[in-house]
Formats: sequence, C-alpha cells, structure tokens
Amino acid sequence: MPVLPSPSLLAVDWGTTALRGALLTADGAVLAERAAPRGLLSIAPGGWAAAFEAEFGPWLAAHPGLVCLMAGMVGSRQGWSEAAYCPCPATLADLAGALLWVQPGRVAIVPGLCTDAQGVPDVMRGEETQVFGALQRLGLVDATLVLPGTHSKWVTVRGGRITGFNTHMTGECYALLRQQSILARTLPADDSAWVAEAFDRGVARALTPGGLLHHLFSVRTLALFDRDDGPALASTLSGLLIGEELRAQALPAGQAVVAVGSPALTARYQRALVLLGHEVHTVGADAGWAGLLALAGRLPQGGTP
Amino acid sequence: MPVLPSPSLLAVDWGTTALRGALLTADGAVLAERAAPRGLLSIAPGGWAAAFEAEFGPWLAAHPGLVCLMAGMVGSRQGWSEAAYCPCPATLADLAGALLWVQPGRVAIVPGLCTDAQGVPDVMRGEETQVFGALQRLGLVDATLVLPGTHSKWVTVRGGRITGFNTHMTGECYALLRQQSILARTLPADDSAWVAEAFDRGVARALTPGGLLHHLFSVRTLALFDRDDGPALASTLSGLLIGEELRAQALPAGQAVVAVGSPALTARYQRALVLLGHEVHTVGADAGWAGLLALAGRLPQGGTP
Repeated sequence: MPVLPSPSLLAVDWGTTALRGALLTADGAVLAERAAPRGLLSIAPGGWAAAFEAEFGPWLAAHPGLVCLMAGMVGSRQGWSEAAYCPCPATLADLAGALLWVQPGRVAIVPGLCTDAQGVPDVMRGEETQVFGALQRLGLVDATLVLPGTHSKWVTVRGGRITGFNTHMTGECYALLRQQSILARTLPADDSAWVAEAFDRGVARALTPGGLLHHLFSVRTLALFDRDDGPALASTLSGLLIGEELRAQALPAGQAVVAVGSPALTARYQRALVLLGHEVHTVGADAGWAGLLALAGRLPQGGTP
Repeated sequence: MPVLPSPSLLAVDWGTTALRGALLTADGAVLAERAAPRGLLSIAPGGWAAAFEAEFGPWLAAHPGLVCLMAGMVGSRQGWSEAAYCPCPATLADLAGALLWVQPGRVAIVPGLCTDAQGVPDVMRGEETQVFGALQRLGLVDATLVLPGTHSKWVTVRGGRITGFNTHMTGECYALLRQQSILARTLPADDSAWVAEAFDRGVARALTPGGLLHHLFSVRTLALFDRDDGPALASTLSGLLIGEELRAQALPAGQAVVAVGSPALTARYQRALVLLGHEVHTVGADAGWAGLLALAGRLPQGGTP
C-alpha cells in the first residue's frame, strides 16, 4: 500500500466572489483542492473565522501543525483583517516578512502591493503572489508580466523585485459594454462564438487614432450597416479593449511578456501581443499556489513568525 | 386686443426616450411648446402615426396647412419610417432635398447623416439639424462643433457643408462607470455636488500617458487611500472621460469650438476646452428649432415636395 505524501502547506486564494484552497506538498503537488462561491461579498463582518473553519477546519485538523497562507481580497479593509499594502519595490522576502497572522503560527494573509505614479496610487491583492509563482515556474528574475482580468495588472520585475505595476479596468469595461450598453443590442448573449479575425480587426483599430470612446461606436455602426454579425462584433469589442490596453501600455518593441491567468483570457492577450510582435509565455492561474509555496519556504522553521 | 402671430412650422425633435415639439413663427419665436416621455422605446411598431396625432393633432387642426418637420431617431429603422442617411459632405439643401414625407405635404422626417473613415461608418440623427441651426444663429459657415451627450458628436463644417464627423460614447460610458462599475461604490448617488478643481485634475490626467482604462482606476485608488471624497471623485471621473475625448480628438492648437447642447453639459466641455487653450462658443439645444426652420425655408412654396 503506497504511503500518501503529507501536505506541507494549505494554500488559499480568497477573492471578491470566490474562494479556492489546495493542500500542497513541498514540491508543489496538489493533494486536494476545493472551491466555493464564498467570496468577500458573501461573508458578513465578523464571519471570516467561522467561514474559514467551515471550509478548511477538517483539513487542518487532519494535519496538525500545517500552516495556511491566504492571498487576495481576504486581506482588504472589507476582508478578514486588513493587511497593509507593501510598497514597491518589493521582493518575495518583503512579502514573507509582512505576513499578517490572523491565527498565530496557523493562518496568515499575504499583503497586497501598492505603488505610486505622479501622486496617483495603484494597488493589487493576490496578483503579487501569482507573479512570484510565475517567476519561479519560469526561472526568471527579470520580466514584464500581464495578469488579465476584471482589473488587468501589468507588472515589471527586475532582479527578482517587483519594481512597479499598473492596473487597467479592461475586463470590467468589457463586461459593462458587452452586457449593458447600446452595443449589447446587436451582440449574442455569450462569447461562445469566437471570431479570431474580428478580434484582430479590433486590436488593429484600437492602435489607430480616434480614441477608445470613438472606436467603441464602430461596434454599433458596423451592425447598423450589416457589415459584421453579432459574434464577430463581440470579438471586435474584445479586441478594441485589449488593443487599447496594449496601446496605452506602450511596450518597447520586441519586449517579451509573461501572461498569467486562465487559458481563455491569456489566449486573447497572447494573440494581441503576438500581432504586435511580442513573444509571449503563458502561465496558468495556479501560479498562485507556487507563489504561496515559495512564501512558505521563507517562513522560520516551525512556521511561526 | 393684440393679434397673435401665426405659426409657420411645427418643429419636432423625436428621440430615443423623449419627444419635444414647438410651434414656431417665421422668425423663430416659440408660440407653444410641449414635451412628453414618448420616445422610440415607448412606441410599438405601427403606432407612430397615432402617437403623433395624439400629441400634435390638435395643433395641426387649429392651423390648417401647417407643415411639420421632425428630426431624430423617428427616422431610424425602429422609428416611424426609415429615412436613409445622407452621406457627407452634406449641405442644408441636401437635407431639404432628402426629407422623407410620411404624410405628403404635412409631416416629414429629416434624414440623419453618415460618413466613413477607413471603412468604418459613423452616423448621426438629429444632431445635423442642431448643427445647421447653431451655424445660422452664430452666422458661421466654417466651424468645429461638439454636441455632447450619450454619444457625443464632433462635426466639421466648411463653406456651410458638413464635411465629416465622429462619435464618442462618452456620456454612455460615464453613466455605466458612474452607476454600475466598482467605482460607483465610493461615489455619491447624484452629480449635484460639482467640484471644478477635481474635474480639472481628471482632464489633466487624461492627457498624460497611461490610457483611459488605467486612469479610470485612479478613481478607485484615490478613494482607497482617502485622498479625495466622493463628490470630488465623481467630478474627476467626468473630467477623465471628457479629457480622453479631447485627447483623442486632437484639435489643432487654438482651434475655436462651438458647443451645442444643454448648459449643464456644454459647461463641462467648455471648461475642459478652455483648459486646453481653446475658445468656445455655446449654443443651447434649441438650436434644433432654428435648424428645422432653416430647412422649412428651403421647401417649395406650399410646403409640398
């Protein structure tokens, strides 16, 4: 009878709408995983410890001494406990040194990062952990990364240090325009029909003068004149928004990019980036597990701070 | 007892959500005006003539032979009858020659305009009439005009001819972001508290590199760090969107602009344009009445086509 390996970390990604957890071995194998629609929005103030025990108490009881590290909105002002943002530049060691232990020696929250450009702050919570995980997977200490999503993050890493980042509200704007604007009237209900060439046209148009607020209206007028059908126009809208993000990001020519996230999302960014002449490496969203494991490796023996 | 002047035109602006009508004298005086929330969205197919009679039948009965000219979405595919777009360049005479008579000699629809840039069409319905009215009010034959709104229009006029235009979805994006995005969480319910300096900061920020999708997120982070309050941030959001529209429009330095519309909207555009060094003339939305009257002056005697 084979001996089951023991877990060395309970890794948790606790976000705005969902929670995911995994029991990881020291070399990153996933022994068990669970997900629940129990994000920040569904947990009443004061209800965090109880929600945590309901989801993960049995695992921790079965593995005495196991440490849990959590990333994401769980550390926000509306979360379990507010973990102050680490300022950039920040290393993995900086994050490990700033863990917020909500149950000493047992459960800690990874702080997010903040940065400041011309007096305007920017923030992330959760992506920092995915970034360090992706770097470790790819063996990189210098990289430009994009983490597409509701609020896409572009992250610069130099010498293993996150030196800066910025956020684009691309996914949220896409959802609003896709579902609730006048454009929605001629678009299909979902994105199941993907038209790659129409996406490419959107990316290319976003790079021409005119501005996003103008280019968006083309989705309306091309429908009015029956020049494109609904599925094509939904793909064009996606291309317009991702193309605008890339236009604004203004990457140096030939800059390689690491795209971290779900395959459906990173595939769109990869396609747009390749159109613009960039080499792209993709890493799945489970890079977050690798990041939490790397953080756990920085803890003092015994796991206590 | 004074003799009441007779009306020489029933002017109607029939849009997506509302309808307005006015009895005008030959010199543009408004003898009577009425408005109703009976726009395109509230009228069933085939119900247009009945809706028209309910609103304006008594006026026309009281003034036999009076002609009615209508501008706006009443001429769209979902309207009373589809008035094909006039292609640019277009003069007032071109519009007069393309009126669509839904009741010959009695009721006509002014067609909208279309244009084409790099294979992408753009359209307007109703604004063309306001443009010609504003030109007449100001005695201009050359102008750059902006008609702010849900879908802002920028219009170029040379020698009394609309040579081209483009649309920005500024007002619609503002409403979506203001009410339904994550930004809405920290903004007040309405725009009654206007903070001019915060608007100016939004305009200025929109002109810096970073792109609209990035700059929008500053409304979130400035709230997170308590650097601005809700009313200020709502004004900043407005400035970011109008500033992005102006950045993309890329007017020549010192270009004078005619802003046509309600005082609340044109005041914001005027402020942003003046910040960028442009001279601005404002004209009220009732420029549409002057435009319809000018069109009526082009009709053959008797009003019949």
